[in-house]
Amino acid sequence: MAVGTPATDKHGVETKVRGPVGQSIPRADAGEKVRGEPVYYGDLTPPNILHGRVLRSPYPHARILGIDTTRAKALPGVAAVATHADIPGIKVLGRMKDQSILCEDKVRFTGDAVALIAAETPAIAAQAMGLIEVQYEVLPAVFSPLEAMRPDAPRLHGGADNVLRHFELYKGDVDDAFTKCDVIVQNTYSTPTIEHAYLEVEGAVANKNADGTVTVWVAAQVPFMARNNVARMLNIPLERVRLINTNAGGAFGGKEDAGFDPSCRAALLAWMTGRPVKLVYDREESMRSSTKRHAAIIEYKTGATKDGRLVAVDITVYLNKGAYSSVGTNMPPAGGLTSKVGYHAAGPYVIPNVRVHAYNVYTNIPAGGAYRGFGVPQMAFAYEQQMDSVAERLGMDPVELRLLNGLEVGARTASNQLLEFSVGLKECIRKASDAAGWKQFHASKAQHGSGKVKKGMGIGSFMFGTAPGLWPEYANATMEIDSTGRILVRTGIVEIGQGPRTVFAQIAAEALDIPLKYVVVSAQGDTAVDQDSVQTTSSRGTMGGGNAVIRAAKEARATLTEMAAHKMGVSPELVVMSHEGFRRTDTNELVSIQDALLYSYECGRRLLGKGYWIVPKPIIDPITGQGNPYHILAYGAQVIEVEVNTETGQVEVRRVMAAQDVGKAINPAAVIGQIQGGVVMGLGSALTEEIVIDKGFVANPSFANFLIPTASDVPEIVPIIVEAPYPNGPFGAKGVGEPGTVATAAAVANAVYDAVGVRIRQLPITAERVWKALQEKAADEKRTGATGI
Amino acid sequence: MAVGTPATDKHGVETKVRGPVGQSIPRADAGEKVRGEPVYYGDLTPPNILHGRVLRSPYPHARILGIDTTRAKALPGVAAVATHADIPGIKVLGRMKDQSILCEDKVRFTGDAVALIAAETPAIAAQAMGLIEVQYEVLPAVFSPLEAMRPDAPRLHGGADNVLRHFELYKGDVDDAFTKCDVIVQNTYSTPTIEHAYLEVEGAVANKNADGTVTVWVAAQVPFMARNNVARMLNIPLERVRLINTNAGGAFGGKEDAGFDPSCRAALLAWMTGRPVKLVYDREESMRSSTKRHAAIIEYKTGATKDGRLVAVDITVYLNKGAYSSVGTNMPPAGGLTSKVGYHAAGPYVIPNVRVHAYNVYTNIPAGGAYRGFGVPQMAFAYEQQMDSVAERLGMDPVELRLLNGLEVGARTASNQLLEFSVGLKECIRKASDAAGWKQFHASKAQHGSGKVKKGMGIGSFMFGTAPGLWPEYANATMEIDSTGRILVRTGIVEIGQGPRTVFAQIAAEALDIPLKYVVVSAQGDTAVDQDSVQTTSSRGTMGGGNAVIRAAKEARATLTEMAAHKMGVSPELVVMSHEGFRRTDTNELVSIQDALLYSYECGRRLLGKGYWIVPKPIIDPITGQGNPYHILAYGAQVIEVEVNTETGQVEVRRVMAAQDVGKAINPAAVIGQIQGGVVMGLGSALTEEIVIDKGFVANPSFANFLIPTASDVPEIVPIIVEAPYPNGPFGAKGVGEPGTVATAAAVANAVYDAVGVRIRQLPITAERVWKALQEKAADEKRTGATGI
Repeated sequence: MAVGTPATDKHGVETKVRGPVGQSIPRADAGEKVRGEPVYYGDLTPPNILHGRVLRSPYPHARILGIDTTRAKALPGVAAVATHADIPGIKVLGRMKDQSILCEDKVRFTGDAVALIAAETPAIAAQAMGLIEVQYEVLPAVFSPLEAMRPDAPRLHGGADNVLRHFELYKGDVDDAFTKCDVIVQNTYSTPTIEHAYLEVEGAVANKNADGTVTVWVAAQVPFMARNNVARMLNIPLERVRLINTNAGGAFGGKEDAGFDPSCRAALLAWMTGRPVKLVYDREESMRSSTKRHAAIIEYKTGATKDGRLVAVDITVYLNKGAYSSVGTNMPPAGGLTSKVGYHAAGPYVIPNVRVHAYNVYTNIPAGGAYRGFGVPQMAFAYEQQMDSVAERLGMDPVELRLLNGLEVGARTASNQLLEFSVGLKECIRKASDAAGWKQFHASKAQHGSGKVKKGMGIGSFMFGTAPGLWPEYANATMEIDSTGRILVRTGIVEIGQGPRTVFAQIAAEALDIPLKYVVVSAQGDTAVDQDSVQTTSSRGTMGGGNAVIRAAKEARATLTEMAAHKMGVSPELVVMSHEGFRRTDTNELVSIQDALLYSYECGRRLLGKGYWIVPKPIIDPITGQGNPYHILAYGAQVIEVEVNTETGQVEVRRVMAAQDVGKAINPAAVIGQIQGGVVMGLGSALTEEIVIDKGFVANPSFANFLIPTASDVPEIVPIIVEAPYPNGPFGAKGVGEPGTVATAAAVANAVYDAVGVRIRQLPITAERVWKALQEKAADEKRTGATGI
Repeated sequence: MAVGTPATDKHGVETKVRGPVGQSIPRADAGEKVRGEPVYYGDLTPPNILHGRVLRSPYPHARILGIDTTRAKALPGVAAVATHADIPGIKVLGRMKDQSILCEDKVRFTGDAVALIAAETPAIAAQAMGLIEVQYEVLPAVFSPLEAMRPDAPRLHGGADNVLRHFELYKGDVDDAFTKCDVIVQNTYSTPTIEHAYLEVEGAVANKNADGTVTVWVAAQVPFMARNNVARMLNIPLERVRLINTNAGGAFGGKEDAGFDPSCRAALLAWMTGRPVKLVYDREESMRSSTKRHAAIIEYKTGATKDGRLVAVDITVYLNKGAYSSVGTNMPPAGGLTSKVGYHAAGPYVIPNVRVHAYNVYTNIPAGGAYRGFGVPQMAFAYEQQMDSVAERLGMDPVELRLLNGLEVGARTASNQLLEFSVGLKECIRKASDAAGWKQFHASKAQHGSGKVKKGMGIGSFMFGTAPGLWPEYANATMEIDSTGRILVRTGIVEIGQGPRTVFAQIAAEALDIPLKYVVVSAQGDTAVDQDSVQTTSSRGTMGGGNAVIRAAKEARATLTEMAAHKMGVSPELVVMSHEGFRRTDTNELVSIQDALLYSYECGRRLLGKGYWIVPKPIIDPITGQGNPYHILAYGAQVIEVEVNTETGQVEVRRVMAAQDVGKAINPAAVIGQIQGGVVMGLGSALTEEIVIDKGFVANPSFANFLIPTASDVPEIVPIIVEAPYPNGPFGAKGVGEPGTVATAAAVANAVYDAVGVRIRQLPITAERVWKALQEKAADEKRTGATGI
């Protein structure tokens, strides 16, 4: 199918738009949020609630010799003290179930959970913490992947080594190809552990109901998986646990593990006490114990011909897994973070020879988990600086080099995946650089500023598999009439700030061909009433959920037509549905949409339709990694202008031109919001964010010393929406959420180099690092007599 | 469509059977029940529960001048005391919402609820009851409908009179027709208030959840209506209340109002306290306050020609409504008990001239409500004795008279409804009388016994509209794969002892054409996860729910075929479903049922299908009552042999031949169980059961003085299943539950007359009444010189 031609896809999905799709409808929850109405798990404080606390390991690696809870249990006001022995069922949680709900034999990071307390007040719970006596035998610990890969390194999880996952990708003959390159650039990059820094810390409220079922309220991107964790922990049927996703006060991938972990722990305490339990981690506890973006060390070698064609890349990545697997491991056939890092390592370019080794290695620090971008921003930081270095060596314009090598329809990726449609990369590169005035800027070096502040402009481009790469990859939707007489759409895709209540309402109204006012969307994620749509991750929500909504709409239209015909006393074949209602073709009699909905409700026909969407299973060669891990990729480019103070090294970002190929912007305002958020998050990682881990301890567990951008730090951002329709997406849409953050740090690094001629290959690009690099450069120039740019 | 020809009906329902339908599959819950596993609301006693109590009126009719709860609230251990002022929303409950949840201005029967208490222990709650001070002004009260219809009678609910509902039915010219009759029989009959006498008393457990939603556990035949009552009482959206129907320890219609009443009261206390509340009425409280079978006074005039043709009936019925409407009122177009009484008043006979007045009149006694048979047993007690009296006057055999006048295909009922199919009446009459040896018995008077004990044999036959007559009349079903990999069928039809878990599993397996082991049925009635199927009443469950299940199966087959094809990587058109699995028509490759289910579950396609059933709206003339109130009727006949002790008047029932036309016995053993239960319940009403109401007080509120049959009272019962298939029912089935009890008392009365020649026109037929009638008969004979039979 030709790209750019909206049409009916092979699944029968209509991509032609005439209703609310494509309009910047205000968010369905905007008013509620302004008025402070949405309910977060932290708002739930029913009478008789108990307050939970987690006793955590003070050591990064230690054997547990004994736990004495006698004194804690005896403290008045303590309702329960739980250790591993109190867990009736499976004692581990997470996707791969390698993380102890409560540690039994040993602890693996400072913050690992050892015991739980439920008490009448938070103060009593805190006091009881001090009364639990744990005997530890401290073990040697490892904190970096290179250290942990040494043969004599202590093992976290037994086994032959600490490598959780070694992903390999092979295409062409890399060693031979390098012998034919005119230019070879080889560098090492590193990115630190960073924190999601969502405003809402992890926690949950749980209750054992009168009938022995359990309800958990939690902000979870993975409601069904978290439900399953809880049920298996309690050794009861899955259906006896109801997990209700509350509004998330920020997620960014972090509410994946934060769905499992506090849910299980709060549920265990509720199970033991029969009372509602609220468990809230405080900020310091959260930053010491929650999952983080994986730190990475990236060894990158790039070869090209003198006319600018990329020939080969050889990449080795060491990811700091931390203590538990979380999303890092293999999820067949091509899922998990290690694979995603590997598949995105070469960037959005046509490269005939590719070799990637990606190691994800256990260490005694908090676990790396899902974080917006899922490993790809780390890779972009490397490959986009490599591109600029190659361009510099060849004397080419960086934009021209990217346009020359960039992916397009008909091209093949590093895993040899043929791109049949929807490749907006080059349009993004052109639009972002045009909007920035790239040519004019670089035409005159004078523009780069005078005096101590130098201006620079850099580009970062990217591709992003907008899907998890695992399988089965599906989504569900149902449509029912609610007690207000509107069509309630449920998808199992949850609200994490990205706006499913608005976007799915638009898709539903468009597919139903009825006014938007008749549609309302629940994005609560309630395992009792929603169908499972796997997870709200991987920028898959709108794409997957939207496809399911379109399919549900088809059934719902037929059902409503049948009921309107029933109301008129004629056969449904005699009735056609239109925007105004249901019309008899013979007499023109009309039943309005509202009357049809009311009639159907009164007649008890409330479940109008269900929709289901699944992608073909990726086919992956187990040896070479070759295949089609992602059914669709998003693309984008950001051009960033910075000012660098040569005396202090301080980098100020002035403008960000952020172009992103989203297939189809269902709601342009929402897409712009995602792009803006992605850029700001990217700027934080570029300039300031670093979790400092000192011998396994998180040394800066607060927003006073882990610095995220504030509103005053946000530069001018120019979002540019590019639409290369994905024919299998809802009205052409593909993923939007994560891509906006992928190339920001890379573009900043390139802009800094453009401004002051120093290349910072370690994130964050702090004033100190720039200043130091400038000093070294000056010293070099003095020594060699060379002059700077 | 010809009766007796199983075929595909006009809705496309397959009535041909090759699987488990028609087999006496053991009940799905048999083992669980034997092992004591099912959970009743009374089993739910979570920690921290509060115990509720209801303060009830000691007067049958009184004005409330004031309620002082100060002292009760001050009692330590009392968590809440509620009066009408504490209700946030609608303060009345029930179908017609005329019953105060807590009385505000006045009380209308001894037992009317005035205040609620929630306390830490039942003892404290009981103590607090004595501390609530209510000032009453006692009002004059009325206890019988005739009294209540007097112009000067005190009004219960204001208005022009106490008549809740006056139903009228007119056919032909009754007055003129009587002038042409050769025989006219005119009598008055009366039946008392009786009690359902379910083992499980009314009650509920409620909780306000951490998120402010409310959950109620209760045995409710009307889960969605009860949910709506609770939500409206609390003034919150319907969806914020979840009502979970627990197993019912007997229902028989009584768990309709018992679904509304304790649910609202327990929920109000939970709402006020934020804690789980358990409210259980004790037996005495239950018998004083719960709904009962309506007492009736029936004036019946029957006319016939000398050749035995029925010509006219003129019937006036006075029903004792009690204090609140419950199900007694008009439910359009033809629902409610008063209408049902009216439509069934003429019996299952062809009668060209019919006049019925049925008055349902408010009195100051506990409300009449739904009770197995829904007013029809009262009418059968009258019309079947009328039939025997006509037969005697004509010198005809009672069976012959019934066969001569009985309804059959092509005939029209008293409301002129044309019976197009499924009329098994005459087959029932023949089979029951043949099984009893009717002809032989009546051929020889000698058989009637010698000495003081006389034998007699009587017949009672009936029709029964197996549907509520109200509209919309619908049912829903869903099929999903549960976590055990089986197909979970939900219908919203609840378990009240009738066996939906077994019967729907049979229907589902039959319609899916898969082995029974893959199907499991939830009959819990959970408003969060079930679709609304209105109510489990009116003998409609199997018929309505079964039809919805068949429709859901059609979708589920298509879905599973699609997923099996997906697994094989081919188009669904290439795959056919059979009993073994899913087979590719080109290669014969097979995916087993189990593999298809597992694959579909893993792929997240768990909601397989939904089914919906609705009947055409009855068309009723508002003046004459003529029309088609019931889309289908069931029929039956019972022949009963009794022995009457002429010295004591004691009646012993020896044998009951119970023939019932059920359309199709989905599970013959379950049908037999229903027939047996119906007969025993009918025998209780025939011989012993009467709620004695003395100036508004229930004088016998215990099983020590309200006598129900015990196991040792059960005679030989010969169930005879007749199948006149209902082409619009599931595999031909129609209602089974209630009909078995309809004609039992009538047949006993006729048998008593056959034995000893006295006609008891007042239920129950106690030894005292028979003895007294025998004394009067003997005195008459002495006076007139006539001899007895």
